[in-house]
Amino acid sequence: MTQQSSSLIPHPSSLRWWGWGTLEQSYDLDRRPNFWPILRTRLGVSGDVICPPVEMGAIDLPQSRLSPRDLADLERIFGVDGVRVDRLSRILHAGGKSYRDLIRIRRGEVEHPPDAVVYPGSEAQIGELFAWAKRSRARLIPFGGGSSVTGGVEPVDRPPDVPAITLDLARLNRVISIDRASHTATAQCGIFGPALEAALNAEGFTLGHFPQSFEFSTLGGWLATRSAGQTSTGYGKIEDMVERVRLVAPRGCLDVKPLPASAAGPDVLQMLIGSEGMLGVIVEATMRIRPLPEARDYRGVLFHSFEDGAGAIRELMQRGVDVAMARLSDAEETNVSIALARAPGTRGARLGMRAGQWIVHERGYGFDTSCLMMLGIEGEQARVKRVKKAALEVCKRHGGMNIGQSAGRSWLRERFALPYLRDDLLDRGIMIDTVETAATWSNLPGVYVALKGTLEQAIAATGATPLVMTHLSHSYRDGASLYSTFVGAQRGDPIEQWQPVKRAATEAILAHGGALSHHHGVGRDHAAWLARQHSALAVEAFRALKATFDPEALLNPGVLGVGEW
Amino acid sequence: MTQQSSSLIPHPSSLRWWGWGTLEQSYDLDRRPNFWPILRTRLGVSGDVICPPVEMGAIDLPQSRLSPRDLADLERIFGVDGVRVDRLSRILHAGGKSYRDLIRIRRGEVEHPPDAVVYPGSEAQIGELFAWAKRSRARLIPFGGGSSVTGGVEPVDRPPDVPAITLDLARLNRVISIDRASHTATAQCGIFGPALEAALNAEGFTLGHFPQSFEFSTLGGWLATRSAGQTSTGYGKIEDMVERVRLVAPRGCLDVKPLPASAAGPDVLQMLIGSEGMLGVIVEATMRIRPLPEARDYRGVLFHSFEDGAGAIRELMQRGVDVAMARLSDAEETNVSIALARAPGTRGARLGMRAGQWIVHERGYGFDTSCLMMLGIEGEQARVKRVKKAALEVCKRHGGMNIGQSAGRSWLRERFALPYLRDDLLDRGIMIDTVETAATWSNLPGVYVALKGTLEQAIAATGATPLVMTHLSHSYRDGASLYSTFVGAQRGDPIEQWQPVKRAATEAILAHGGALSHHHGVGRDHAAWLARQHSALAVEAFRALKATFDPEALLNPGVLGVGEW
Repeated sequence: MTQQSSSLIPHPSSLRWWGWGTLEQSYDLDRRPNFWPILRTRLGVSGDVICPPVEMGAIDLPQSRLSPRDLADLERIFGVDGVRVDRLSRILHAGGKSYRDLIRIRRGEVEHPPDAVVYPGSEAQIGELFAWAKRSRARLIPFGGGSSVTGGVEPVDRPPDVPAITLDLARLNRVISIDRASHTATAQCGIFGPALEAALNAEGFTLGHFPQSFEFSTLGGWLATRSAGQTSTGYGKIEDMVERVRLVAPRGCLDVKPLPASAAGPDVLQMLIGSEGMLGVIVEATMRIRPLPEARDYRGVLFHSFEDGAGAIRELMQRGVDVAMARLSDAEETNVSIALARAPGTRGARLGMRAGQWIVHERGYGFDTSCLMMLGIEGEQARVKRVKKAALEVCKRHGGMNIGQSAGRSWLRERFALPYLRDDLLDRGIMIDTVETAATWSNLPGVYVALKGTLEQAIAATGATPLVMTHLSHSYRDGASLYSTFVGAQRGDPIEQWQPVKRAATEAILAHGGALSHHHGVGRDHAAWLARQHSALAVEAFRALKATFDPEALLNPGVLGVGEW
Repeated sequence: MTQQSSSLIPHPSSLRWWGWGTLEQSYDLDRRPNFWPILRTRLGVSGDVICPPVEMGAIDLPQSRLSPRDLADLERIFGVDGVRVDRLSRILHAGGKSYRDLIRIRRGEVEHPPDAVVYPGSEAQIGELFAWAKRSRARLIPFGGGSSVTGGVEPVDRPPDVPAITLDLARLNRVISIDRASHTATAQCGIFGPALEAALNAEGFTLGHFPQSFEFSTLGGWLATRSAGQTSTGYGKIEDMVERVRLVAPRGCLDVKPLPASAAGPDVLQMLIGSEGMLGVIVEATMRIRPLPEARDYRGVLFHSFEDGAGAIRELMQRGVDVAMARLSDAEETNVSIALARAPGTRGARLGMRAGQWIVHERGYGFDTSCLMMLGIEGEQARVKRVKKAALEVCKRHGGMNIGQSAGRSWLRERFALPYLRDDLLDRGIMIDTVETAATWSNLPGVYVALKGTLEQAIAATGATPLVMTHLSHSYRDGASLYSTFVGAQRGDPIEQWQPVKRAATEAILAHGGALSHHHGVGRDHAAWLARQHSALAVEAFRALKATFDPEALLNPGVLGVGEW
């Protein structure tokens, strides 16, 4: 297992610096004729582009604080190719992809860019960077794909004399080895989702981790933030998949031994997963992988109510019916999803669709009041067949109607596309953000009702008509996650409008027994609430770990409410 | 959820203070006529009782160091009933149940008894005890069932002026609530295995946690040491089952929120599980429970080799065949297990047994060269049937022969009995101890060969003929645990004979990629090797957590190599 890495740094000029993903891709709204009419009615918006992002030239980027000597030092460590101070690089690393992040960058406000972006190609270089940062009183922000929606990568609040360097891990992107006997793969942590999956697929394996950010997030980022993929119900969250990590900290290197389980004291690995770059840089990980599924069955099941569908998922989990995914939209989300469906291309398809809708209606379901579940099953052919049968039986008992695989196919095709739509909504002056949590089955109904009610009230209080859509996904024997998308016309300053809505939602979640986050993480945006979930003593424990791994607090100050500038 | 607790303290006079379990129970060697002849031949021992334990009166117990005033203080906190300084109580809390512990107590050596045993009935009392200990410079040892085999509960190495108080949690033994929707149960942590299971069974649930110590260990003890039950392959290890704990530490109380999953920073719960009483006292836990299985199928499968059987288990795990248990003995262990089987009671049963042995032989298997797997499947009737079929197909492909349920029934009947046999062996001057580890499937063969070879060599070096028996159990997609029992005639001082054997085994495990422990824990006996598994930095992290939760180091000094007297 050598540490040598690719010398190629992906060129970021193809990225939408003001939004999601690449310039080549977009959300094909033209093919979805029902979407704008519904949104116009629901939100009272025109649907015209009224606030496009500024041109990059209009951004008044603060000067890099690095002296020529600092720069020379960094170039000595990383090579001339491995240090970037150009506008685009600094802008692309100045923040994540939260609503607040996008509002600011679209207005041309890039207040906290890093003073340089460096691309380590080896652990030795990271060690040299730590030594340099100690001498220079600089602070370091580890950076994977930069898709954080919790303020995880933005060097805010630093005093004017402290330089901030972003450590982009894109060069540490090799798959190091695959252990076919143990079903594990070891990779460098800067590898992006598609590259990792492609390498595993070529050997007949999959990680089975597909967060919505899949195309633009990295293995290290997933581990640092406790990510969950869309099929986490079947494959586990990232913290279940990881067997070992190698962390390079200012105090030294911690290489967790690859073991299936251990009773040697508190779980060291689980202290590092979710540490969001505050303890060290996760440079390498060994992940539990699975054989590529022989078959996949993704289909829609329609329920009379959210409660019915949730009851079905609870039974699936508690009886051990091994589905990869069961994702239940409430009536609001179902309604909008249908409106977002692509118009059928042919007359036959249009007729088929109408016939299907008629059957749905005849059986007492309606796309405006019913709740759509996406049910996904993966694995060996015979297993998929058996689990499908068992799952549909459970669903039927809870009033669920199987509406077939075409809904599943369209979901699979568009599983990573929705963040592009956000950019279109921002163009049109619409507030859109998501909050997510998890709770036990007992607490879940209370969290759902409180979260939806609070969001609707808080948005209405800003003078906008609220649209709140929620789904239940990532399920467990003892509970599940909830994910709400809230939408409303922008009123006044968008960030000032949004802040009280976000705050009220977080308070409602915590007051009703929900998790501060199920998979987005904490970053700087959720840090103030961390003690509410864990108690003050637990946050002190985070501080104690920080002091052990990073005593000079060089790394990512502020995330998890820990570390000073 | 009230904190009020039972005022009954179980009376320990029925316990075998010099060995395992209760005085009423024993291992019925009379009904196993083949055992001693084989052991005599294998080990060259007479089988006569040559070193019975001393009488309790012969123990020269050091005086309690508590002053009358100290005692009065403790009685004020816990009531007269809640403080014990009698001989039996102090002896019963002076150590665990390791080979070394039993050798010493059987010789009448009780060098480090606690100065008193207290039985808290509430958190408030534990808080008062912390305050008292701070004033008195006393140290506190949390104590569940006392079945530690790693020196987890013995106050060794303390200076003469430091009192040690054992905190026996037996009074905190209530099941507080069962959440039927979330499939969780909340209980106080002093509850013993059978009481907890009985309460859950009465409501139609099970925890599914059955360590060999089940009858004499507690929920809190399991959590503090990362215990694994015999069916952990199906139900998970204790760290997978726990959703929440409440920990009372000298610095305050940490009540982890009950959540199915969270992305709010490093895993706080998993920092406490395995902390072995060094961070605080785990007083309460919420556990994931399962419906009582409708059906159970436990049966024997015979393999031509350990390799074949391990291959079958690996395939079962990696294809997701959901067995509760797959426990594979190597040829040595199979051989001795057969010798330990009870003689059939009737002529018909004897004939049936012989017929079975003939079939086994005819098909090319032999109980002296083959390897026996205990395969256990639990759950809904239809599921058990299906999984059994799938599992036996996998076994067959690896050369496994189904030998039916009678082997399974006898295993179930005796699943907790073997520790009693150890007492019989000690009576007869035989060294017997176990070591356990876990490794990835890739590392497992190397660990197995090294561990077996090292044990045999190290025992032979003491002048005894070695008998080393190993099984593979507790399996995962990426690896499994190994558990070796090593036996040999005692030579010279039993502890001096044993120590280099234990040390060599631990070194061999670590050198070949095995875990320091898969489920016995660290205690004081494994502490010296902790940094070898985790790196020095991780042990520093444990120290940092200790300083946060217990800054005066009141709790269990020495476990995990942390804490000073």
